[in-house]
Amino acid sequence: MLTGDRPTGPLHLGHYAGSLQTRVALQNVHQQTILIADLQALTDHSGRPRDVRRNVLEVALDYLAVGIDPSVTTIALQSAIPEVAELTLLYLNLITLARLERNPTVHSEIELRGFARDIPAGFLAYPVSQVADITGFRATLVPVGEDRLPMIEQTNEIVRRLASLAGHAVVPECRALLSTTPRLPGVDGRKASKSLGNAIALSASPDEIRDSVRAMFTDSAHMRVSDPGRVEGNVVFAYLDAFDSRHEEVENLKQQYRNGGLGDVALKRRLDEVLQTLLEPIRTRRALLARDPGAVLGIIRSGSERACSGAASVLSDVREVFFLNDHGCPMLEHQASSAETTAVLCQRLGPLLRCRLNDTLCTIPSCHRCTAPSRETCSFSTSAPTQ
Amino acid sequence: MLTGDRPTGPLHLGHYAGSLQTRVALQNVHQQTILIADLQALTDHSGRPRDVRRNVLEVALDYLAVGIDPSVTTIALQSAIPEVAELTLLYLNLITLARLERNPTVHSEIELRGFARDIPAGFLAYPVSQVADITGFRATLVPVGEDRLPMIEQTNEIVRRLASLAGHAVVPECRALLSTTPRLPGVDGRKASKSLGNAIALSASPDEIRDSVRAMFTDSAHMRVSDPGRVEGNVVFAYLDAFDSRHEEVENLKQQYRNGGLGDVALKRRLDEVLQTLLEPIRTRRALLARDPGAVLGIIRSGSERACSGAASVLSDVREVFFLNDHGCPMLEHQASSAETTAVLCQRLGPLLRCRLNDTLCTIPSCHRCTAPSRETCSFSTSAPTQ
Repeated sequence: MLTGDRPTGPLHLGHYAGSLQTRVALQNVHQQTILIADLQALTDHSGRPRDVRRNVLEVALDYLAVGIDPSVTTIALQSAIPEVAELTLLYLNLITLARLERNPTVHSEIELRGFARDIPAGFLAYPVSQVADITGFRATLVPVGEDRLPMIEQTNEIVRRLASLAGHAVVPECRALLSTTPRLPGVDGRKASKSLGNAIALSASPDEIRDSVRAMFTDSAHMRVSDPGRVEGNVVFAYLDAFDSRHEEVENLKQQYRNGGLGDVALKRRLDEVLQTLLEPIRTRRALLARDPGAVLGIIRSGSERACSGAASVLSDVREVFFLNDHGCPMLEHQASSAETTAVLCQRLGPLLRCRLNDTLCTIPSCHRCTAPSRETCSFSTSAPTQ
Repeated sequence: MLTGDRPTGPLHLGHYAGSLQTRVALQNVHQQTILIADLQALTDHSGRPRDVRRNVLEVALDYLAVGIDPSVTTIALQSAIPEVAELTLLYLNLITLARLERNPTVHSEIELRGFARDIPAGFLAYPVSQVADITGFRATLVPVGEDRLPMIEQTNEIVRRLASLAGHAVVPECRALLSTTPRLPGVDGRKASKSLGNAIALSASPDEIRDSVRAMFTDSAHMRVSDPGRVEGNVVFAYLDAFDSRHEEVENLKQQYRNGGLGDVALKRRLDEVLQTLLEPIRTRRALLARDPGAVLGIIRSGSERACSGAASVLSDVREVFFLNDHGCPMLEHQASSAETTAVLCQRLGPLLRCRLNDTLCTIPSCHRCTAPSRETCSFSTSAPTQ
């Protein structure tokens, strides 16, 4: 199973509800790799590499703080796995530009970022880089939201194209593990996003949590406590649904809110309590872990090393399909050539090579191919044996 | 100085006139790397990797046969230099898709190949891969034809973008070494190309040379020997200009041809002699070298190894700009963490990490953060020292 995050900022409650909980729950069930996708983050943050770098640690701290266990889950850093870059370049040959541009996920992200025609070329290539990630770990299960299903489809297209080129399966196809959790909205009801500043970070302080809950969008028509209010689209209820384990009480509150008689202040007080209880231990653990960043980086490093050796084996298989063998010498299997042989041949070739075709270039005295009369000896002869 | 060829077929007289001669002449003047661009060849030959592979050897044989000296020129294979793949991916972030699509060289090659909308994504990225090649060898001089000047321009754009990101120069800008030789046409007067089958290979047999010369396009209005003929656009004269060293005689022949009285047969006989004389020693050397492909591959391999170590130093500098250090652990310089420290921290973290936030996930007996009463001990405590 492969999951991952772009280190563009600390993770927030949306990540927790949507994927972190699942990863913690599944880490003892599936062999799990979590990839901190710093190279992918650079595709649209190339001007802010320092931020990306800082956030690698932040994201790793978030993982460890919520209960990702590095002894069972591999936490790897994309830029520490050069094999993935090579895979990406090879896969770029197996997909057309038009197909990449049609990818609906890329489409909507291009819109979200307001790139218009200024799409960094790397950004358009990032779905292929994801294919390299997924196949590089031979992942068969990829937890995604419904909006990312086209990515899985595109991955399998490339996997099948590779298999058809090779005449046999090279890397496994993958399937999506669809999250059943509805996407958690931001405080303002829009899509929760670090850049919009409408998300509650896992590392949020008690005050930040309280302020965010206070600012939450409820129902603008719900002016007085006695007014009937809307539950659908109400951010506070979305968060209660996600994080309040007393589901029956939440259902009763919804009924009461719909009928009128439940005020936003009381409702938000309940959510504040729920979130404070949820985030307090995460924040504390995070702070403990943050005291030793070197050790956290050590965890990333050893995870990346483990990931590298897996990816190297995949890369070797994929290079084989393109007739590029491990040492990059595509015909090495023909005839192994020791360094000695090469040296001998180079010596032997020396006079041949120096016997230029063009008189003015000839650096060897008296090559009989050269017309200048002052040349003396040249070992070049069409009938000379090569030994 | 960096030059290179895509191994999509054996090299031909167009390569010889346009670039191979220059490389041979300059190899003792400039530090020269010749890159066999197999990865680039795969961008539009992904369905025929076996051909690309075979042609790596063919192209290397051509180099050695014309007088490229591996003791002064580095012959390297692109796919054997993984650093170039990483550089390519990083550079893709420094250029927009629109800019790539505007590249006139790419434009005309897309047309030549009849890709329309089915451009492989890798093909559009290949100018960036060339930037990686050029900068990967810190090349400052790139011999090109006029049609490839936009490539040089694009390279320097990326080099400057990188410098502006870093706040200092990272890799040198390069300049084009414009070839003064006009482009040699194909036998049929169109652009000489392996795929059009209108080029004379350096390895052509005497019969193949003769047949090609006979098939050469001259002047369709020149029916009888006595007719005045056109020299401009006459393929035979283009080849005589390129390969007949008796320039004065060639000029006289041109005059005679223009006036009428010089037949195509006589003209072609002269060219045939010139080309036979030129290609005979090349063909012979090529045949000698081809007897020991392992040794030729050894030359490629040792060249690639030399190229790798140079490219690794460039990659390290470029990664630095993106705050990705050598080991891929972007904050390693903060605080080095030995494997021991990590192990200790993992142990220390163990109970913390296993103390799940959610009761149902808790695998540690009696965590006081968990509500289940049956748990016994948990080392987790917000006030516990981390040592």
